[in-house]
Amino acid sequence: MAHLSIIGTGNMGQAIAAVAGRGGHTVQLLGQDDVATQVTGDIVVLAVPYPAISAVLAQRGESLAGKVVVDITNPLNFETFDSLTVPTGSSATAEIAAALPQSRVLKAFNTTFASTLAKGTVGELTTTVLIAGDDADAKSVLAGVITSGGLEAIDAGSLARAHELEAIGFLQITLAANEKIAWTGGFGIVAA
Amino acid sequence: MAHLSIIGTGNMGQAIAAVAGRGGHTVQLLGQDDVATQVTGDIVVLAVPYPAISAVLAQRGESLAGKVVVDITNPLNFETFDSLTVPTGSSATAEIAAALPQSRVLKAFNTTFASTLAKGTVGELTTTVLIAGDDADAKSVLAGVITSGGLEAIDAGSLARAHELEAIGFLQITLAANEKIAWTGGFGIVAA
Repeated sequence: MAHLSIIGTGNMGQAIAAVAGRGGHTVQLLGQDDVATQVTGDIVVLAVPYPAISAVLAQRGESLAGKVVVDITNPLNFETFDSLTVPTGSSATAEIAAALPQSRVLKAFNTTFASTLAKGTVGELTTTVLIAGDDADAKSVLAGVITSGGLEAIDAGSLARAHELEAIGFLQITLAANEKIAWTGGFGIVAA
Repeated sequence: MAHLSIIGTGNMGQAIAAVAGRGGHTVQLLGQDDVATQVTGDIVVLAVPYPAISAVLAQRGESLAGKVVVDITNPLNFETFDSLTVPTGSSATAEIAAALPQSRVLKAFNTTFASTLAKGTVGELTTTVLIAGDDADAKSVLAGVITSGGLEAIDAGSLARAHELEAIGFLQITLAANEKIAWTGGFGIVAA
């Protein structure tokens, strides 16, 4: 069984905690401002909005050494809904990985709306979490947590693919914001 | 009813022709090398691989003035499967639009594998075509062709969103190439 620390108690943090709980894993759920509490998880999920990431890294960066760190952010410009706020061609995950050279950083959960994580389905499909990262073992451990919680997980490739995952998350958010899809729907993945 | 010219007789060209045919529209299906035949469609689908686009534009660019031109390409580097061959942050569609200032250029069909276009479904879901472009009327006309052929269509936003559609197409191809999903599957869209 894995032990996760989830920083951020919003919809996404709660939904990811519930998935891990369904899989029989233990979860430490920390508020973003609860900086006095040391993270105890081997997997640390940064479930805060992208603009809060830099503060979390400044507060907790050293304590994340040796851990699997999961970035779930969609770094949209929420004023324009027309671009991301990370450098063209890069990703929030690449920035976080550069800031945490002692951690094994993954991208995951940014292409699944909170409701589809909580429910475990998107429409008739089982919710599938796409995971990108350069550490195969870390991806496998996270995939195990996800599948034990009743969801599907797919290894989407190297950390470089975080760019594409953020593009998917971006487009999905704009489709929902423009009422082309519901916040309870989104991209499902048909594997076969 | 619309009249389409489809340049390219591969799996994608044939599948798009079939969708239009199911909707009662007329289709002129042209081989890439059939340069002697004038395009007659009001909607012209460039159903050739990305590396062949520049030749098609050189041969037919002037005759595409005033028409709706649909780019379906996924400009992958097929040697590495690790990047696109268009400039970072841009898209094949943006390049085509720049080359065809008299045409109304759309991105569509690049996020749906040929088999899901031909079948009309991806798993249990109706196949959904995402359309990006700056001309609302052109998007509406193409969406009408698609929905009359039994598929779903979603307006994915401005031409700038072609970058995100190409990121989705890129990731979907790498997932299939790595056998994470089948070429008969892929991303489905749950609207509600």
